[in-house]
Amino acid sequence: MKSENQTFVETKFFTFAEPPHELVLESREKIGPITLAYETYGALNKDKSNAILVCHALSGDAHAAFWHKDDKKPGWWDNMIGPGKAFDTDKYFVICSNVIGGCKGSTGPSSIDPKTGKPFGLSFPLVTIKDMVVAQKKLIDHLGIKKLLAVTGGSMGGFQALKWSTLYPDDIVSAIIIACNHRHTAQQIAFNEVARQAIMADPDWQKGDYYGKSIPTRGLAVARMIGHITYMSDQSMNEKFGRKLIKGEKLGFDFTHDFEVENYLKYQGDSFVQRFDANSWLYISKALDYFNLAEDGTLSSAFKDSKAHYLFISFTSDWLYPPNQTKEIVKAVKANDLDVSDIEITSSYGHDAFLVEVEDQTKIISHYLTRIFKTAH
Amino acid sequence: MKSENQTFVETKFFTFAEPPHELVLESREKIGPITLAYETYGALNKDKSNAILVCHALSGDAHAAFWHKDDKKPGWWDNMIGPGKAFDTDKYFVICSNVIGGCKGSTGPSSIDPKTGKPFGLSFPLVTIKDMVVAQKKLIDHLGIKKLLAVTGGSMGGFQALKWSTLYPDDIVSAIIIACNHRHTAQQIAFNEVARQAIMADPDWQKGDYYGKSIPTRGLAVARMIGHITYMSDQSMNEKFGRKLIKGEKLGFDFTHDFEVENYLKYQGDSFVQRFDANSWLYISKALDYFNLAEDGTLSSAFKDSKAHYLFISFTSDWLYPPNQTKEIVKAVKANDLDVSDIEITSSYGHDAFLVEVEDQTKIISHYLTRIFKTAH
Repeated sequence: MKSENQTFVETKFFTFAEPPHELVLESREKIGPITLAYETYGALNKDKSNAILVCHALSGDAHAAFWHKDDKKPGWWDNMIGPGKAFDTDKYFVICSNVIGGCKGSTGPSSIDPKTGKPFGLSFPLVTIKDMVVAQKKLIDHLGIKKLLAVTGGSMGGFQALKWSTLYPDDIVSAIIIACNHRHTAQQIAFNEVARQAIMADPDWQKGDYYGKSIPTRGLAVARMIGHITYMSDQSMNEKFGRKLIKGEKLGFDFTHDFEVENYLKYQGDSFVQRFDANSWLYISKALDYFNLAEDGTLSSAFKDSKAHYLFISFTSDWLYPPNQTKEIVKAVKANDLDVSDIEITSSYGHDAFLVEVEDQTKIISHYLTRIFKTAH
Repeated sequence: MKSENQTFVETKFFTFAEPPHELVLESREKIGPITLAYETYGALNKDKSNAILVCHALSGDAHAAFWHKDDKKPGWWDNMIGPGKAFDTDKYFVICSNVIGGCKGSTGPSSIDPKTGKPFGLSFPLVTIKDMVVAQKKLIDHLGIKKLLAVTGGSMGGFQALKWSTLYPDDIVSAIIIACNHRHTAQQIAFNEVARQAIMADPDWQKGDYYGKSIPTRGLAVARMIGHITYMSDQSMNEKFGRKLIKGEKLGFDFTHDFEVENYLKYQGDSFVQRFDANSWLYISKALDYFNLAEDGTLSSAFKDSKAHYLFISFTSDWLYPPNQTKEIVKAVKANDLDVSDIEITSSYGHDAFLVEVEDQTKIISHYLTRIFKTAH
């Protein structure tokens, strides 16, 4: 629904390449040039000290807030970014960029490989959370920002914010990390793997070489449905759907959708395939599974060079990234004598809470940013 | 591993039909004749008062215990059924039958439709948990048993045992109900629906008409993988696999299986398609989703005619059918002044615990059966 005071935004593009026009990835493979799609909201202040980088989740993109001309709904975190909102664009300059490996304007497996003139497909190199962050740093440098007031994100956005805080300790004031873990558990890997198997089981996937042909819509829809179950809680599903039948019949079964929850999942799956690339899903979900903040030692030692102020937010009913996983990170950060705030919000919305629990998050984040902004000046 | 004292068993078959050779199902559709595959362990006593019916879970079958000549492992609950075991075959006569709609010898969608001479496929009628129980009752009548000492089962087996206790209150002494709910929540339906969508997304599924052609192995494997995640707990997955890599490499990613948990799931999926029919999965999972013990009123009123002694067992880490769902049933049974025992076993094995927590279950069930057998005599 568009309102009269809607603000429009356009996605911008930044292309960069290190000599010889390549970026060295964590896997040591090289790729270039790299394009990042990004958007900005609000204005950068004179001393460039009010910039906040928002990192998106697995299926997100650079369009975090405001409206595109042809939008039916605004950006994915518009309830949190804007004048007077949690990330107040009257005060802060907010940036969001599509991750590398993505499919919404940044270089990814659906991009044209300059060496062949054809889409990369599976010849696209492995990208990691670190690679996403390294690419974002190029964009921040390009915007002339020396130090970010905050890096933030929920879910995979939180993984990126964590990595920012340890990789570039001198370049961020604070990290606001929402609903995430420091590395995937076996169960988190398992959910991603089954979704990947669903995509790869689709004959239209063709080992990733489907561009310009039939796309693997059925597999990707199943992958998305699996994701949606993990994003909601048992309680929120029961409140929203319960056992309600679409047809209102007691027994009408023909393997189509007779429970409302089935219809919802099918709709979510079918609409997702219109806007997301299956190969990007494979690459980005793998980046999540490989991420391990504690890989070089203990989790606590991962923060040994960090200087950031940390705010952690988790949600009671989030069973994909439950609060106890956040507590582990909090403990490790505290062990390094860093400034940490840890808030567990009571919510029935499951993992989706970071997208919908606006009121509590707004209070917490706006006060936090005011404090951090003062600290930094 | 076969041992020297292994006992062999053969699957038997019982075919029945009501005049005119048809059984009226809950959906009012008719089908017949019906064959049930079943096995028995131990001996029926003189007054036929020591019979226990074991009901199997979604992917189970009649082969609950002992060995078939070509078995690499014994029946699926062999650790619980046998001489000196929880269901002690020195004392009790144990029966297990494959449900209607199944694919291991009982009439189901892969059976030949006598009217067409071809496999039913999707022309097989809807079957419900009640239909499964009604068919089992025919078998019990055929065996000359007037009253079962116990009906038991875990997961979908528990749903059947619940239905037995309310549908045939005069014909059972006790019900031992393990790891189940009285109706599916939206999340439980959602997991089943995504698995069904995975099967139906496979082009080889062909609207269920795949017999004698390519079978939908890829879709069924994905369905099984989804199931396996819900059968294990986050803890048991972490203990078994953690983040261990198969190749031992840090970054070796090519969308095949590099985490051990991925390999395990893929193996489970691939081996399942060798032994289970995709259409049976669709039918039986739908029967589970439709089951609603409280459909005619409150849950408590569902037990108004019950006379059984009840034993409920649940497991702390079972997040598919968590203990609080069992507690709801216990409360409803107690409201009817019935004899109820309720045991919550501490276990890290998740829903699978009913198949692996042998020691605790054996103590509880063997003592319980001794008491019930005395009560009944």
